[in-house]
Amino acid sequence: MTAYEIILKKKNGSELSYDEIKWLVDGYVAGEIPDYQMSAFLMAVCFNSLSGRETSDLTMIMAESGDMFRLSLDGFSADKHSTGGVGDKTSFITAPLAAACGVYVPKMSGRGLGHTGGTIDKLESVPGLRTSLDYDEFTGVVKKAGFCIAGQTGSLCPADKKIYALRSCTAAVDSIPLICSSIMSKKLAAGADGIVLDVKVGGGAFMKNTEDAVRLAEAMVSAGKKAGKKCSAVLTGMDKPLGMSVGNSLEVIEAIETLKGRGPEDLAEVSVTLAAEMLELAGKGSPEKCRSLAEEALNSGAALKKLEKMIELQNGDPHVIYDYSLFPKALYSCEVYSPEDGVITGISCEKTGLISLSLGAGRKTKDAALDYSAGIVFDRTTGDTVRKGERLAVLYSSSMCDFSGILSEFTDVFQFGCEEMMKNQKNIIKFIKGY
Amino acid sequence: MTAYEIILKKKNGSELSYDEIKWLVDGYVAGEIPDYQMSAFLMAVCFNSLSGRETSDLTMIMAESGDMFRLSLDGFSADKHSTGGVGDKTSFITAPLAAACGVYVPKMSGRGLGHTGGTIDKLESVPGLRTSLDYDEFTGVVKKAGFCIAGQTGSLCPADKKIYALRSCTAAVDSIPLICSSIMSKKLAAGADGIVLDVKVGGGAFMKNTEDAVRLAEAMVSAGKKAGKKCSAVLTGMDKPLGMSVGNSLEVIEAIETLKGRGPEDLAEVSVTLAAEMLELAGKGSPEKCRSLAEEALNSGAALKKLEKMIELQNGDPHVIYDYSLFPKALYSCEVYSPEDGVITGISCEKTGLISLSLGAGRKTKDAALDYSAGIVFDRTTGDTVRKGERLAVLYSSSMCDFSGILSEFTDVFQFGCEEMMKNQKNIIKFIKGY
Repeated sequence: MTAYEIILKKKNGSELSYDEIKWLVDGYVAGEIPDYQMSAFLMAVCFNSLSGRETSDLTMIMAESGDMFRLSLDGFSADKHSTGGVGDKTSFITAPLAAACGVYVPKMSGRGLGHTGGTIDKLESVPGLRTSLDYDEFTGVVKKAGFCIAGQTGSLCPADKKIYALRSCTAAVDSIPLICSSIMSKKLAAGADGIVLDVKVGGGAFMKNTEDAVRLAEAMVSAGKKAGKKCSAVLTGMDKPLGMSVGNSLEVIEAIETLKGRGPEDLAEVSVTLAAEMLELAGKGSPEKCRSLAEEALNSGAALKKLEKMIELQNGDPHVIYDYSLFPKALYSCEVYSPEDGVITGISCEKTGLISLSLGAGRKTKDAALDYSAGIVFDRTTGDTVRKGERLAVLYSSSMCDFSGILSEFTDVFQFGCEEMMKNQKNIIKFIKGY
Repeated sequence: MTAYEIILKKKNGSELSYDEIKWLVDGYVAGEIPDYQMSAFLMAVCFNSLSGRETSDLTMIMAESGDMFRLSLDGFSADKHSTGGVGDKTSFITAPLAAACGVYVPKMSGRGLGHTGGTIDKLESVPGLRTSLDYDEFTGVVKKAGFCIAGQTGSLCPADKKIYALRSCTAAVDSIPLICSSIMSKKLAAGADGIVLDVKVGGGAFMKNTEDAVRLAEAMVSAGKKAGKKCSAVLTGMDKPLGMSVGNSLEVIEAIETLKGRGPEDLAEVSVTLAAEMLELAGKGSPEKCRSLAEEALNSGAALKKLEKMIELQNGDPHVIYDYSLFPKALYSCEVYSPEDGVITGISCEKTGLISLSLGAGRKTKDAALDYSAGIVFDRTTGDTVRKGERLAVLYSSSMCDFSGILSEFTDVFQFGCEEMMKNQKNIIKFIKGY
């Protein structure tokens, strides 16, 4: 077997065997196959794709390139993954909701890069909270709080780390089998019994249309099933930022508000839907039953208690739940007013994310420090009728950033029009069930 | 400008600007762009191709990556390039033919690798002959003998060296714009006024069908024209080895025989046709006039004298022209007999080449020594009717190689059938003229 032959085979559109994929991935991780052959292979995959069988094989081979965790829990465990969107803080709501209903949620998450935030970054805005846990600490928190959100532990998917880094500098990014194997290999290695995938669709998501999102969702659900996991995917809308807040502590606060029953409708709906899916995977009953269980966990405050417990177990200050002033406070703020009368027909996710980055909420380079207080809180959202001069949003930052430049960019964040121009932006678009 | 953006643009099927291609190639040669980005780019080109304009730009940028020779000759100079085939010794005939008619032929050639031989290797079978000349020696021989065949001198196309090496280990080989730029960049840098391209077509060639060969020929002629060169291509057949001899000294002897008017018909026809094309580029008259000039140079022995002169000027023993025993002599030989009555309907180029390699005529590894005496001389060719037991070929080698193994492989070299099964294998298939 040679890398040349495998590249040629994929270039010619042939299907690769399990052994060929394994030889290639293992050889690449071991440093025996050079980057330039792997990058040629990945580019050939971008053009000729992979079959379902090849995708599942690649996913499992990548998962097995590092530690494969086997959770020793006394009940069903479900993981949750989102393909990424601006303002997405559902994990802080969905995980305690599921935990409150008796489903363990062991969730390893990543940091943000570029214009979308990272779950771990957001969580670290809670004073004192540790996200670097060893595996025993991680499972300990899961057992006691019912869920844990922490950074990756151990050697999780070294194949994905290497392949992802290569893809990200060779434009081999938008391939559904490669996205699927990158996401699912980590989820399979993390060891939960079930996996719920939140596939974002729309202008602010990687998948711009429902067709592509369905293909990705089906590939992931299929790879999960073949690996013996219960698996389902929910396509959710990302035509505007999710909820009203963008930025690390601002998003945690919004998640807490949602668990108190005071959150924005879109965020609550997506979070409850995902939690209900997790309950379904765990066999907690019919879709309707699971949904009402999740809603009850929200309304009763049971999920909020779970979040409080988790924060405490991870050395965070649990009083933040009741006193938001304990979060890092922004030194500067700036209000944005509507330039015209009209209906807000759109809010650009990308521009919102980039402005949040400029304010200090994200990293411009890999090792930059974060401003946990920075971000945007919207007063108004799509569909709202506004008058000229009405306040639309408040920007926060602790660095003396270029507010006037940012304000001039902000004029592009909102699109205005009339009622008839409103596209029907659904929160929940479609379910792909794999169990 | 980033390599990522350029790869992405080509991956999305967009056309690159001159500046983008130049930035990429120059950055790669300078070591600023890593192999893994270039290999991803080349694979994207294999799928999305390059436009004619992009191909010409790439060709010229690659040519300009190293020395650009400017020949100071008092007349028109024409180069000749073959895309490669088994038994192809036309350069030793075509170049002296053109030189005898007053066209300078400064020809830099390469060595063989794999199952096809290299012009420089073949030439070095002439005792004493030097092919490593510096540029002044090279042009000196051209001026005195009318032509010179030598190895590449100076820093010719470092971009091609690096890109070719990368393509050859990433399966990015069979792309017409990449083949075109590789061949033509070297020819443009070598500095001749005109270029005649011999594009081989058929089972034994890289281009298996006429359509692909026409596309490659047109791309090369177009890139040459855009660079201000007179340029034409001839599609010639490669369904069987060219001529009757394969192997270094055996091919030089066959070329000499052809210049004495005793060569095989196919070899003579291809050689004279290519020489006539070179004369046409040089403005020596109508196609008919040029052809008769070339034929006269062959029949009069004038071209043979040119070859003798060139050998002498490059320190070779010119007596080889009249005494073939001065060539290295094989220590062993082995005769092959027909296993059946019938018509020879095919001779496999690849198998012939591989057997010649086994006999010692080629290099199994990059630095292996060559056996100049080794090779195959066919007694019979396609279209011939043979009887069982009749001699078909003689194999030569100076190493005690596995003749019985080779003989058993040789049964696959010939295909037998009846008269009706003979495909019409033309020597000259098509002309692509660019002047």
